[in-house]
Amino acid sequence: MPDKTPDQPRIAGVSFSLYPMCDNFIDLILSAIKKVDSSKVWMKTDRVSTIVRGRIPHIFDVTQAAFLEIAKTGEHVVYSATFSVGCPGDTEGHAYMDADEKTLNRELIEAVDQKLSAKFALYPMGGGNYMDPIYEQIEAMKDHGVDVELTHYETMLEGAAHNIFNGLQSVLQAMEDAGSSHTVMTTTLSANSPSA
Amino acid sequence: MPDKTPDQPRIAGVSFSLYPMCDNFIDLILSAIKKVDSSKVWMKTDRVSTIVRGRIPHIFDVTQAAFLEIAKTGEHVVYSATFSVGCPGDTEGHAYMDADEKTLNRELIEAVDQKLSAKFALYPMGGGNYMDPIYEQIEAMKDHGVDVELTHYETMLEGAAHNIFNGLQSVLQAMEDAGSSHTVMTTTLSANSPSA
Repeated sequence: MPDKTPDQPRIAGVSFSLYPMCDNFIDLILSAIKKVDSSKVWMKTDRVSTIVRGRIPHIFDVTQAAFLEIAKTGEHVVYSATFSVGCPGDTEGHAYMDADEKTLNRELIEAVDQKLSAKFALYPMGGGNYMDPIYEQIEAMKDHGVDVELTHYETMLEGAAHNIFNGLQSVLQAMEDAGSSHTVMTTTLSANSPSA
Repeated sequence: MPDKTPDQPRIAGVSFSLYPMCDNFIDLILSAIKKVDSSKVWMKTDRVSTIVRGRIPHIFDVTQAAFLEIAKTGEHVVYSATFSVGCPGDTEGHAYMDADEKTLNRELIEAVDQKLSAKFALYPMGGGNYMDPIYEQIEAMKDHGVDVELTHYETMLEGAAHNIFNGLQSVLQAMEDAGSSHTVMTTTLSANSPSA
């Protein structure tokens, strides 16, 4: 199990899925994945989701770009993800931690201006005062220009995709910087919903 | 905040979404929800998901029935959910805890024979030895006739919908019976996937 030091960040990962609500969902997913440069992450798709692992900026960059490639078609699409850092079982495939922090998909991402309705939840594992960092990070989300609303089990977010992804990435990074031993964060991001 | 006693189970809840990957997703969702009897649960849909709260058997019964109503059309559909018991913020709407345990949608559910690919993750909050109950519950899942495979961040499940839902409900109930102060469980259930 790798320990975190200032020089050596820990490997982060996400199990994520894209759900385009349309008949041509397969084409949309395959073409989005083809356009995204995932050369700085470990990536594997199974029967239920895709696992992306590596440095925090890259796992957000790759999954955000794939999502926005579909969202920009105007179809209703949902991004559902479980982020994790420090999972006790997460011990293999660290080669990608040698990548630098320069993200590869900024151009794709910045070309799409997309509003999202979203939810997120933070689970700091193994600690007694786990509600304090949760409330702190909900508060911090507002600094990213995201509208925040409390609801059952999760926190509702509304705003630009750019701001919401920045906010989510900052939450995970802040938990790492604070020395959290094992952090899980789930999120559901909805684009072009007819109910919005 | 309600304390759990043997006579008075705590309110459980789930934030869940159904994602039919087809052009007529709205009709499928609305018609499924219309067919399900949700009179023993508190239920509210927002811009991202639907919250269902009440006794454990009913939150599974209602959401499983809605999911299978869509799955039986043969369309690829995903059920994504975050279950929670004992969330410190979860203090209102306890009226539905007076309902008896008799589930209302067994007929709908038993009429559908559906194979699923799935993942689940268990997050016992606030405790130091949180990995032990996780490994125990992964093991217990096998007693329900579900194929279990370890992967990153979550556990992969394969089997009949009936067995997987029974397994998931048993995990949440077992955590309650063991006195867990706050349990979160996430799951993604995929039916009729072209990649299966």
